[in-house]
Amino acid sequence: MTATATRATETGEFSEELVSKAQAARKASRPLSRASTDEKNRALERIAASLEERSDDIVAANAQDYAAAQADGMTDVLLDRLLLNEERVRGMAADVRATIALPDPIGEEFDISTLPNGLRICRRRVPLGVIAAVYESRPNVTIDIAALCIKSGNAVILRGGKEAINSTTTLAGIVREALEDAGLPRDAAQIIESTDRAIVGQMLVYEGGIDLLIPRGSDTLIRFVRDNARIPVVTGGIGVCHTYVDADADVEQAVAIAYNAKVQRPTVCNALDTLLVHSQAAPKLLPAVVAAWAQDNVEVHADGRALALIGPEPPTRVITAIEDDWGREFLSLTAAVKVVDSIDEALEHIAEYGSGHTEAILTTSDENATRFLDEVDAAAVIVNASSRFTDGAQLGLGAEVAISTNKLHARGPMGLRELTSYKWTIVGDGQTRT
Amino acid sequence: MTATATRATETGEFSEELVSKAQAARKASRPLSRASTDEKNRALERIAASLEERSDDIVAANAQDYAAAQADGMTDVLLDRLLLNEERVRGMAADVRATIALPDPIGEEFDISTLPNGLRICRRRVPLGVIAAVYESRPNVTIDIAALCIKSGNAVILRGGKEAINSTTTLAGIVREALEDAGLPRDAAQIIESTDRAIVGQMLVYEGGIDLLIPRGSDTLIRFVRDNARIPVVTGGIGVCHTYVDADADVEQAVAIAYNAKVQRPTVCNALDTLLVHSQAAPKLLPAVVAAWAQDNVEVHADGRALALIGPEPPTRVITAIEDDWGREFLSLTAAVKVVDSIDEALEHIAEYGSGHTEAILTTSDENATRFLDEVDAAAVIVNASSRFTDGAQLGLGAEVAISTNKLHARGPMGLRELTSYKWTIVGDGQTRT
Repeated sequence: MTATATRATETGEFSEELVSKAQAARKASRPLSRASTDEKNRALERIAASLEERSDDIVAANAQDYAAAQADGMTDVLLDRLLLNEERVRGMAADVRATIALPDPIGEEFDISTLPNGLRICRRRVPLGVIAAVYESRPNVTIDIAALCIKSGNAVILRGGKEAINSTTTLAGIVREALEDAGLPRDAAQIIESTDRAIVGQMLVYEGGIDLLIPRGSDTLIRFVRDNARIPVVTGGIGVCHTYVDADADVEQAVAIAYNAKVQRPTVCNALDTLLVHSQAAPKLLPAVVAAWAQDNVEVHADGRALALIGPEPPTRVITAIEDDWGREFLSLTAAVKVVDSIDEALEHIAEYGSGHTEAILTTSDENATRFLDEVDAAAVIVNASSRFTDGAQLGLGAEVAISTNKLHARGPMGLRELTSYKWTIVGDGQTRT
Repeated sequence: MTATATRATETGEFSEELVSKAQAARKASRPLSRASTDEKNRALERIAASLEERSDDIVAANAQDYAAAQADGMTDVLLDRLLLNEERVRGMAADVRATIALPDPIGEEFDISTLPNGLRICRRRVPLGVIAAVYESRPNVTIDIAALCIKSGNAVILRGGKEAINSTTTLAGIVREALEDAGLPRDAAQIIESTDRAIVGQMLVYEGGIDLLIPRGSDTLIRFVRDNARIPVVTGGIGVCHTYVDADADVEQAVAIAYNAKVQRPTVCNALDTLLVHSQAAPKLLPAVVAAWAQDNVEVHADGRALALIGPEPPTRVITAIEDDWGREFLSLTAAVKVVDSIDEALEHIAEYGSGHTEAILTTSDENATRFLDEVDAAAVIVNASSRFTDGAQLGLGAEVAISTNKLHARGPMGLRELTSYKWTIVGDGQTRT
């Protein structure tokens, strides 16, 4: 623990629970960092098996949370996020087994070389140390994040929402027992049981006690974390995603992609927010896209030129776009549409309003595809495919803890490797510097 | 620029000079990010040539700073750091030419694959965007950092010490002209001319305006940056470096390494601070090390057991170590010495007092070398060589902007590649997500 954390502890700035659990996690992180892949996978297999064996206990604990939340007037959408049933518990076990199948990033050596003076050097991948996760009503995040942290050799401090406290405490207990059963320190997984909201604020400034904090949940949570963190955090999850349809795009393909990007799962960060359409493509494309979206009652906020092309009797609700629609993340069945006269205008619009998450071009021009890939500054830049592909599982990373829109450390989907650091190892036989 | 920077600008929280220069740097960063290696090298060659051609102007500008600082009572050590003469200017030009010779990291594609659905994906290395450097009396940092930023495609905002303002302004002018001569935007290099110290504080919270800030200078500066930054910064440069001499180490080699690590350049972060010696090796080793150090009048702060072995009439000043000597970065010809009874005790001491910079073991035991490499958590872990090798140039990275003791993003020496991020590129032919 650094001087900062020690000082803060002494002055009572941090809750006792946080300090004692963070210290226990730090201590446990050392043996965990050196655990073999087999040991870590054994712990994960025990988690999966326990989830299945103790499904009834988990569902019963969750029922308490659910009843309390219902009595409290929680909305149906949030209640659904909170709910665990036997099927969902089986799904969690399956996700843990999928993590077992992922390659272990720890210990990998890269940039290996022997210098002219005989020093043998490389960078060796190591865990970050202690990772904290702050999340809200979805209790499955407990298992999801714990499994990724264990596999990447990191200790984890979990802090779920108070509305899911019985569920998360039960799940965290399963993780701790599984670690112990596998011969690893149970203290490598900690759950904060106090529901005092001040603890989240303390975690965000717990320099030296937490190496990386991952927020999972609403925009409000993520913005709170971004605005108050003094320790490294993953700030991502906010995606204002544009799809630009170029002059000569394949209309049928473009309609299918625009439909998929908007409708397949509208509540997530990589869903389409704004469709930019080249004026040459717009007369054919726009009515077709709007007709496709109309099947799912997508609401369209269109600029004046798009409005004229869509016509006076659209098959779905179409209203005039206002300035606030550009750069807005809808997270719902709503899309903004704008007609542009060139790829340059599209690139400028994206540079001004994009959030650096995912931007796509649909084009048959190699030159424009190349320009778009070169010039757009975003975590993911896509040619002729749906923006929904910016996802750890889709890109072959396995599970992801978050999608980063930072440029430092990791950008885009963060899988196991993105939860690691490296150290330089330098082996000599007596070299001194001249 | 993000909402934060815009808001702060509107409320007058940031100086006009900072805002206008940061905006100009951001704009220039886009074409610079796409500049070819040839264009960037041409700009560097122009910088090197101009430094040589305009050596007299530079030395004259520096003479003004030097005279003012002298009149102000600046110490000789600082005056020497401030001084530029013809030889030093030639050295700066040579360093720029060395940067030309380094490989360009930008555009490199890695983790290339084709997914089962036909999507071709990879990560492509891109610049971070706008890098700021805050430094003190050494005017050469202006050229050093500017050259590394240009080569890595990043715009740079330079903020030197007020005592070097004439020197740094002249040097920054050369950089800006060279960029323009090479067909690149001169605004990609900015120098803050106001000597108001408040600007440094503003830079540290300029979210969205500066992508990474690098402090170069004293401990005080680096700590100020670490404690006040809201934007990403490199916090490194503080090295409490241990060298542990194992029971069976080669005594002659150990003496040579301990001498080199302490004496070759005592004022830098990778110099030896504490020598830990196994009790079996200590009787032979300690008198020999102290005799070697005595040639350079190294002051020794020894624990009780070491004191007894060094004997009552040491050839250099030896005093009893106090608790504060452990974990202290001396940055001078002083070393702490402690006798330990096992590698475990050495590892514990390092875990408690190390700063995560560089730790070394001198041993003939493969088993202990492996344990040390595995168990020590530091940016660089060294076997049988001097701690002074933790250095970008020594490790083959070329020049370095700093040595990071962070675990996120980059650890250890930061060269060109560590000034980059990446973006995912995803190329399809109509894929949608199911």
